Amino acid sequence: MCRWLAYIGEPRLIEKFLYEGPHSLCEQAQHSHKAKLGVHGDGGGLGWYGTPEEPGLYRDAGPAWADPNLRELTRVLESRIFFAHVRASTGAPNINVNCHPFRSEKILFMHNGQIGGFRLLRRRLYAMLSDDCFDAIVGGTDSELLFQLMISNGLRENPGDAIRRTIQEVEALRKSEGIPEAFRATIAITDGEHLRVLRWSSDRAAPSLYLNWTNGSALAVSEPLDEDISNWWAVPANSMLHLYYDKGSVVSEHIESFISTDTV
Amino acid sequence: MCRWLAYIGEPRLIEKFLYEGPHSLCEQAQHSHKAKLGVHGDGGGLGWYGTPEEPGLYRDAGPAWADPNLRELTRVLESRIFFAHVRASTGAPNINVNCHPFRSEKILFMHNGQIGGFRLLRRRLYAMLSDDCFDAIVGGTDSELLFQLMISNGLRENPGDAIRRTIQEVEALRKSEGIPEAFRATIAITDGEHLRVLRWSSDRAAPSLYLNWTNGSALAVSEPLDEDISNWWAVPANSMLHLYYDKGSVVSEHIESFISTDTV
Amino acid sequence: MCRWLAYIGEPRLIEKFLYEGPHSLCEQAQHSHKAKLGVHGDGGGLGWYGTPEEPGLYRDAGPAWADPNLRELTRVLESRIFFAHVRASTGAPNINVNCHPFRSEKILFMHNGQIGGFRLLRRRLYAMLSDDCFDAIVGGTDSELLFQLMISNGLRENPGDAIRRTIQEVEALRKSEGIPEAFRATIAITDGEHLRVLRWSSDRAAPSLYLNWTNGSALAVSEPLDEDISNWWAVPANSMLHLYYDKGSVVSEHIESFISTDTV
Amino acid sequence: MCRWLAYIGEPRLIEKFLYEGPHSLCEQAQHSHKAKLGVHGDGGGLGWYGTPEEPGLYRDAGPAWADPNLRELTRVLESRIFFAHVRASTGAPNINVNCHPFRSEKILFMHNGQIGGFRLLRRRLYAMLSDDCFDAIVGGTDSELLFQLMISNGLRENPGDAIRRTIQEVEALRKSEGIPEAFRATIAITDGEHLRVLRWSSDRAAPSLYLNWTNGSALAVSEPLDEDISNWWAVPANSMLHLYYDKGSVVSEHIESFISTDTV
Repeated sequence: MCRWLAYIGEPRLIEKFLYEGPHSLCEQAQHSHKAKLGVHGDGGGLGWYGTPEEPGLYRDAGPAWADPNLRELTRVLESRIFFAHVRASTGAPNINVNCHPFRSEKILFMHNGQIGGFRLLRRRLYAMLSDDCFDAIVGGTDSELLFQLMISNGLRENPGDAIRRTIQEVEALRKSEGIPEAFRATIAITDGEHLRVLRWSSDRAAPSLYLNWTNGSALAVSEPLDEDISNWWAVPANSMLHLYYDKGSVVSEHIESFISTDTV
Repeated sequence: MCRWLAYIGEPRLIEKFLYEGPHSLCEQAQHSHKAKLGVHGDGGGLGWYGTPEEPGLYRDAGPAWADPNLRELTRVLESRIFFAHVRASTGAPNINVNCHPFRSEKILFMHNGQIGGFRLLRRRLYAMLSDDCFDAIVGGTDSELLFQLMISNGLRENPGDAIRRTIQEVEALRKSEGIPEAFRATIAITDGEHLRVLRWSSDRAAPSLYLNWTNGSALAVSEPLDEDISNWWAVPANSMLHLYYDKGSVVSEHIESFISTDTV
Repeated sequence: MCRWLAYIGEPRLIEKFLYEGPHSLCEQAQHSHKAKLGVHGDGGGLGWYGTPEEPGLYRDAGPAWADPNLRELTRVLESRIFFAHVRASTGAPNINVNCHPFRSEKILFMHNGQIGGFRLLRRRLYAMLSDDCFDAIVGGTDSELLFQLMISNGLRENPGDAIRRTIQEVEALRKSEGIPEAFRATIAITDGEHLRVLRWSSDRAAPSLYLNWTNGSALAVSEPLDEDISNWWAVPANSMLHLYYDKGSVVSEHIESFISTDTV
Repeated sequence: MCRWLAYIGEPRLIEKFLYEGPHSLCEQAQHSHKAKLGVHGDGGGLGWYGTPEEPGLYRDAGPAWADPNLRELTRVLESRIFFAHVRASTGAPNINVNCHPFRSEKILFMHNGQIGGFRLLRRRLYAMLSDDCFDAIVGGTDSELLFQLMISNGLRENPGDAIRRTIQEVEALRKSEGIPEAFRATIAITDGEHLRVLRWSSDRAAPSLYLNWTNGSALAVSEPLDEDISNWWAVPANSMLHLYYDKGSVVSEHIESFISTDTV
């Protein structure tokens, strides 16, 4: 289980989102209010888009709250689309290749949640990967595997479909194998232009996901950064948001029931 | 603020103290019940005595609960005197030289607490060190400095006096400089034969320290490892215990009011 | 490419093998004379057998020559069978799960060399693993994969055959896929009683492997620890040594041409 | 001993300086041709100036050649003034606070070399620091101490004088204490506008320092990045260069004999 935030909008310095206020991401890392696991000390990471088309990436396996590099980087980096993530391992070791965001060329991906019964399903999920995506995997998380499954399913060409199809495939396998544990996920994906955030669960306990919408900028978060509940809109379960620039401002397209439940 | 445990007695495998039970040290690292800071993810360490006179030492700056080396080491190491520690930084960076225990030749030292106003007092405290002890310091914690002050004050030759004198000197400086924040500490020190544990505060809020006494073995802890309160004796504030082998069994000498309050 | 040493015999302190003399393992890490890559700064590790049946294990992804924990551990650990390893990555990231030795229950494994064309063969090699061995893999090295292939092939039950069969299978795949790069390896494997060291190459350039035999103790090394060449016997290419205790002293059985070349 | 490079000029992507060509900085880290120590695996770092006045900073204690974050950062960061450094420890531990560059507000500092007899002089050098500079030190290198001595001597207000005075003071102390080992250093310092690089030794064996001057950009390096010797001008020993923008282009002021030898 993890905590994350994804921003799209006017270029902003990243620092304040991680360190300022009572529920900044690094505060959540130590004392989350909404996560199943209260402590997220198993790594942190940052991805951001600037001048080159491909994003910058920084990941470290230690506690984000005490990481001097994360402090220094966020102090000077400003970006119009960025991801930040703090990790609480559900089993995979604390090594930088298991930290989020994950990058593939110009795409960034990050995740909170867990594939129920992942250890039992893992080998079959690997078998669904294209050769290139199999080769690309360097760590041991269900997160990285989900990302590569999406790429195998066409994330570069048709992102909405690839995301939907991947969720369906994993869910179908979980059911056919009779795994009792749920498959729950909030996911953010971007290519630097389009941001998709997803809230999904196979049961009625989807992990929380909120959106803050200010002056044409949007901030998606695992849990609110402040206590003024009126600032934060709870994204409905099993839906996806598609945020992107249109004529200079950020617009949002809400895809209800992004999963056809009778398919799965 | 930190959590620690110190064991003296029949040789025991270290593993269970760190990983078994609802309040094992690595559980406390994630969810402490008695510490001011609930999370202790800023490093962990281990010191133990075996065949050679000098102890073994292992320290790592990441969260102890996720450290594979700590797991592997405690799985095979058994010892008649050992220390284990999980750290929550009060400011000094997460680097292995700031992790406990600290070792000087055959002596191990570990600490929970804080010297109030340490930043303001630090340079004067450094000035009290012998040249050798000044040279020996490689990190930036008040803990390492306290240890080296004790060595400067004769810890090798007359440990009880050196401990007492160091506490008095630090406390006297804190008072003369008008520092409002308290000086609080629980400390464990051993040379592999004699174990001294100390509970001290300049105010009435000394950090907790408990002793469990079973079959001639003694275990001193920052907080109990289980919920059966009858197993754990709360060491009185501002006192020191001296535990050692005598005719094959561990005995304890309790030194009340180890600090002459009129001196400080 | 890596440097390693494996010891069997009278219990010895590990320290001197890593730090003393002009060609100690940590010296080799900085200035190897015989390795293709002169610098081995991509991690170090230690495995040793003591009182419990399962070995102790310590691995770190930083340069072994500067690792304070390795220094402290080897200063106090003595053992009758131990492995030490310094790593130069051939591509897999510098993370502790990619460091040697690898452990599976009571078996330790370490490796120098490379499977030619590993990236191309990797997915097919994974397919040869038993489900348990697939699950056991946490890193990305050809070394860990070789170890798990051997376990899949019966390393616990019939170690000599499992080692031989694994080399043959990998070599057969390399040939059938038309990989031009050679498959070269020196490998050490032990269960705490029997030590097997192997020198293999698919071409005529097998990595070096030497044996030093003193007072009933044996030391196998990637390259000699001192310059007195008379102390070191060069193990012939494509052969395996089986070293074990018999009536209180270490004996060696030399298996020439351990690979039936016409099979591969 | 370390290897470093400092760039001033048209904004450039940092990547190629570290990874491209036969003598890029990360190649030098593994196989230096001119350094006393051939291997520089004890940490790496990066400092760069962009939009905010204060520079970005990244440091890691592992080998720079294998650091995925350094790769990712340099792939996207472009800057008009940046520093990069790979470290070979002369004694201080491999921890990020001992890695270069060091930052104080908007000033960056990095260093190659060594104060002869540093262990013996260290306490007296600490005594020369202002209280603020004493407080600012978090690691154990002579490099960080030199930087803070320069700040104590007025680096912010009058950089040329502060640098000169600090070298003189350290050298005077070394002589008065009868230290036989030389004091040698190449140093780079910048505030984001002015770059000063210094080549100094108390004997005739000053560490190498070269300058490449292309299209109004300047690159100062410990050793050349390519083999075309005509590209690289050897900075004379015991002199300092002052490089800065004037009317849109970089100019250089060469200060011969920046140390009055009769003073020291």
